[in-house]
Amino acid sequence: MPTAHDVAIKQKHIKTKNETVMQASMPHASGKGKLKIIPLGGLGEIGKNMTVYEYENDIIIVDMGFIFPDGDMLGVDYLIPDISYLQDKKDKIRGVLITHGHEDHVGGIPFIMPQINAPIYAPKLTCGLIEAKASEHPQLKHLKLNVIDPDKDKLKLGAFEVEWFRVTHSIPDSVGIILNTPEGRIVYTGDFRFDHSPVDGKKTDISKLSRLGDEGVLALLSDSTNAEVPGFSVSEQTIAATFDNIFEKAEGRIIVAAFASQINRIQLVINAAQKHHRKIAFSGRSLLRNIEVAVRLGYLKIPQGIAMKVQDIATYAPDKIVVMSTGSQGEAMAALSRMARGEHKQIKIGKGDTVVYSSSPIPGNESSITTVVDDLFRRGAEVIFDEKDGDRTHVSGHPGQEELKLMMELVRPKYLVPWHGEVHHLVHHAQLAQSIGIPKENTFILDNGNVLEVSNGRVVKAEKKVVNGVVLVDGLGIGDVGEIVLRDRKVMATEGMFVVICTVDKKTGRLLTSPDIISRGFIYMRENEQLVNNARNEVKKMVAVRDGEPLPDWTKMKLKIRDHVSQYLYNHTKRSPMVIAVLIEV
Amino acid sequence: MPTAHDVAIKQKHIKTKNETVMQASMPHASGKGKLKIIPLGGLGEIGKNMTVYEYENDIIIVDMGFIFPDGDMLGVDYLIPDISYLQDKKDKIRGVLITHGHEDHVGGIPFIMPQINAPIYAPKLTCGLIEAKASEHPQLKHLKLNVIDPDKDKLKLGAFEVEWFRVTHSIPDSVGIILNTPEGRIVYTGDFRFDHSPVDGKKTDISKLSRLGDEGVLALLSDSTNAEVPGFSVSEQTIAATFDNIFEKAEGRIIVAAFASQINRIQLVINAAQKHHRKIAFSGRSLLRNIEVAVRLGYLKIPQGIAMKVQDIATYAPDKIVVMSTGSQGEAMAALSRMARGEHKQIKIGKGDTVVYSSSPIPGNESSITTVVDDLFRRGAEVIFDEKDGDRTHVSGHPGQEELKLMMELVRPKYLVPWHGEVHHLVHHAQLAQSIGIPKENTFILDNGNVLEVSNGRVVKAEKKVVNGVVLVDGLGIGDVGEIVLRDRKVMATEGMFVVICTVDKKTGRLLTSPDIISRGFIYMRENEQLVNNARNEVKKMVAVRDGEPLPDWTKMKLKIRDHVSQYLYNHTKRSPMVIAVLIEV
Repeated sequence: MPTAHDVAIKQKHIKTKNETVMQASMPHASGKGKLKIIPLGGLGEIGKNMTVYEYENDIIIVDMGFIFPDGDMLGVDYLIPDISYLQDKKDKIRGVLITHGHEDHVGGIPFIMPQINAPIYAPKLTCGLIEAKASEHPQLKHLKLNVIDPDKDKLKLGAFEVEWFRVTHSIPDSVGIILNTPEGRIVYTGDFRFDHSPVDGKKTDISKLSRLGDEGVLALLSDSTNAEVPGFSVSEQTIAATFDNIFEKAEGRIIVAAFASQINRIQLVINAAQKHHRKIAFSGRSLLRNIEVAVRLGYLKIPQGIAMKVQDIATYAPDKIVVMSTGSQGEAMAALSRMARGEHKQIKIGKGDTVVYSSSPIPGNESSITTVVDDLFRRGAEVIFDEKDGDRTHVSGHPGQEELKLMMELVRPKYLVPWHGEVHHLVHHAQLAQSIGIPKENTFILDNGNVLEVSNGRVVKAEKKVVNGVVLVDGLGIGDVGEIVLRDRKVMATEGMFVVICTVDKKTGRLLTSPDIISRGFIYMRENEQLVNNARNEVKKMVAVRDGEPLPDWTKMKLKIRDHVSQYLYNHTKRSPMVIAVLIEV
Repeated sequence: MPTAHDVAIKQKHIKTKNETVMQASMPHASGKGKLKIIPLGGLGEIGKNMTVYEYENDIIIVDMGFIFPDGDMLGVDYLIPDISYLQDKKDKIRGVLITHGHEDHVGGIPFIMPQINAPIYAPKLTCGLIEAKASEHPQLKHLKLNVIDPDKDKLKLGAFEVEWFRVTHSIPDSVGIILNTPEGRIVYTGDFRFDHSPVDGKKTDISKLSRLGDEGVLALLSDSTNAEVPGFSVSEQTIAATFDNIFEKAEGRIIVAAFASQINRIQLVINAAQKHHRKIAFSGRSLLRNIEVAVRLGYLKIPQGIAMKVQDIATYAPDKIVVMSTGSQGEAMAALSRMARGEHKQIKIGKGDTVVYSSSPIPGNESSITTVVDDLFRRGAEVIFDEKDGDRTHVSGHPGQEELKLMMELVRPKYLVPWHGEVHHLVHHAQLAQSIGIPKENTFILDNGNVLEVSNGRVVKAEKKVVNGVVLVDGLGIGDVGEIVLRDRKVMATEGMFVVICTVDKKTGRLLTSPDIISRGFIYMRENEQLVNNARNEVKKMVAVRDGEPLPDWTKMKLKIRDHVSQYLYNHTKRSPMVIAVLIEV
């Protein structure tokens, strides 16, 4: 185990509090106050996890993620939780706890942390990944990162006493959180699974969980994303065997696509490369960044002499090469997609190449992935993108139904609150809990903004929600793209725009030039000159002011032009571009 | 069996040709010409099926479908095959054969048939559905629809002799096609599966297929969409048992969502309603249209007194009601989506309601479906949207691997050409063929536009492709939205637009007014007045013409303004809206 001193500047190891376990940590303790648990993100959705725990004058925050927007949030980069609820409570925030380094748990940090003056606590790799991210965001210069050891540390943050437990997930150093509060003990699993033979040897800490169960736990907040998947997830090690088979058979280059954050998966590919005497190259910025952090902190071992640069690929025989690459989700600019289109500088795909997708499609990405897969097939590559003959190239990092039940059996909570998942996941997770004896009234289906109130050993769901929602991040702007901007984007996206500019004489009201028309995204202008000319003539007729007539109300005239042109275009094309009329008085 | 006379006006039954089977129908016959098989759609994709069969002066077309565009084809309604190849060959087209009534086989008819003066041949229900569609498209007034009986009919179309065979698929009256040509017999399966107990009793005609195998078939063109699914698809009848279970347990209203074209599925829901003494209502325009056609032509039986109107729903107890609805794909305006949002006039979803998705998500629709499912759960409904406890609410209409092999074993073709599917489907279908003994060189992986040349009992893939591609349908326009329009839409969709209008004095070159700025979809204008004002000042500085200076080149000035403003906005927002500069000389 590397020590805390390995970790780079700006991080410091917290001092372990070896105080006697305070009364607050007793499971059903009863203070005089009320504990509030408020999810600001992650419930009713998969992504942007963020939860507030509040007890009188103390608040702690767990996780700070983002989510990628739906297809109809045009041009938006990320969505982050709305933290309006915290606006007048910022001085109460004692700390931010991060369970692991995936973007749906850390992605909001660059946008939210500048508003929050509190330290972050997380295990070493997570801190390392946050630090690497921070180095790309100048506004995060003053981030206070504290490395915790989940096996030993105990931390007092205001009224809260925090402990951790290790969990297996698809990134190393994932943890769950034990909150000892004046109103009882709350356990949050974070994203987890059970794997009895994990690649890094770090198993979900069954013994600690079982001890918690012995001592008593008031409420368990547990990962719901796979609550509809029967059975028990498969060990990450099974993938090693699949890789072995694939590497054994492949006669040319092997290209493996995976998520950049899958440090253990990367290790498996490195191991397979070593075993089969192939050199390995890495392609993709986020992959390279994560590998740098993971190697530096001791989470990834690359044997001497095995790594090579993508630029040097031509100097090795095809059957001596493995390339690990980003692009498993069909991202247009990722290395793998460029290979598929024949645009990658160093790697030209052809007969004999084997491409392995060590990932599953994120819903919504299927068709982009298919485009890449089909192009790879067209170039003659063998593409393995799904379970083949029972061999898996990917396993989930989340718990199936039997694992969820095992977690409940270990922790034996009085209340089970399905956490992190879409509503259907939460409902089915609650049904699972009921199936093993937790009463229905001791489970809760929450949405973001709901408040769980904990006092006197009881948990209730408050009737009222706190302010919640999403903040849109677009370029440098946080929150400056809202409904109106999105609505306009949508109209222009599907129908284009059509601007009519009339320059009129201030005094006579006469048109000084023929109306200018600018249109984009509507119709081929060159092939539809007639339509444009006719529209122009329609406008001329409307604006015509005869001598002696009073001048029109130009504001009303603008609306009239807009409506008339809209109707005219719709009648002739059945399309409704955004029509804007501009009147310039000279 | 209803006779041809049941079918409405404009359709006529073809005259059966009882000629002796001509020499041309012999499997490996050799004329002096060359048969060309050219897919214009449906290969390398799922959708817009259309294939050209050409022998000297005779052409027949099989299927004429559309495909829904990807998310990045903003605002486009449908894509249809590019038929440039047929432009100078229209007088050779002897007929259009349609295999079944799904949109990926008939959806292109309204846009392509007006350009083609040839009769359509299809079984009765398919003709009925095309006719109903035609009634909504005035340009299809003169469509010549001919009903064929797949069990008996044989048709001479130029050099081709056509026969049909019944197949089971997810819509009744689906057929495969047997083409006896001077160069041998070609068999095209259409979309099919095997179901030994289909709801309508019409099985894939194994006996005819086996006879074809005995007589000899040169090439089999076979459905590839499920070529990666192991095993044999499950009978549609298993859904009847699931419905029975669900109807048995449901204490309130039952709402079943399915595709409007799933006539057999609709029958199963009607049967379940009858058995469990519930009235049934139908909601959704396409569903009502298809039901009208199917009932009229005898493909759907609604027992007397069981149907009711959605408007009358309040007059029945919740446990006496079934509603069948469209919206299984999360379409925002469909009945089910409106129920989920609480916007449906007659049906307010609540506790006790059971919603059944009798469908599977089309890739790309997952997140829209989840939104609806989650809203239904939030309203307290029980939602069944996936296999539950092994009970299926949906089965595929396409053949799994064992069915594909069975088809090959029955037909025993010399050549197997994987048809209809993305490239990875085609590749795996070809591998299946090889696994049962068809030599690799007798299988072909084709893309749209490829040409299979058949002569002397041999099939080869020509080196050159014919013109192929997609034509975009947007509103009334067919083909008038192209790359440039789409590119503009994309920019405006993600970044918005920013128009700068300068009105200058023709003689002095001076600005007559402060530049007008119009922006949409870029940023909240009201909250960013400073940015807009600064941009305006930048423009003023650029356009300023001092006394005595020569007038600027206005065209160059426009480009300069555009580039400068683009850069200015990017520097301050990291966004790149479409900037348009307009100079009006007065």
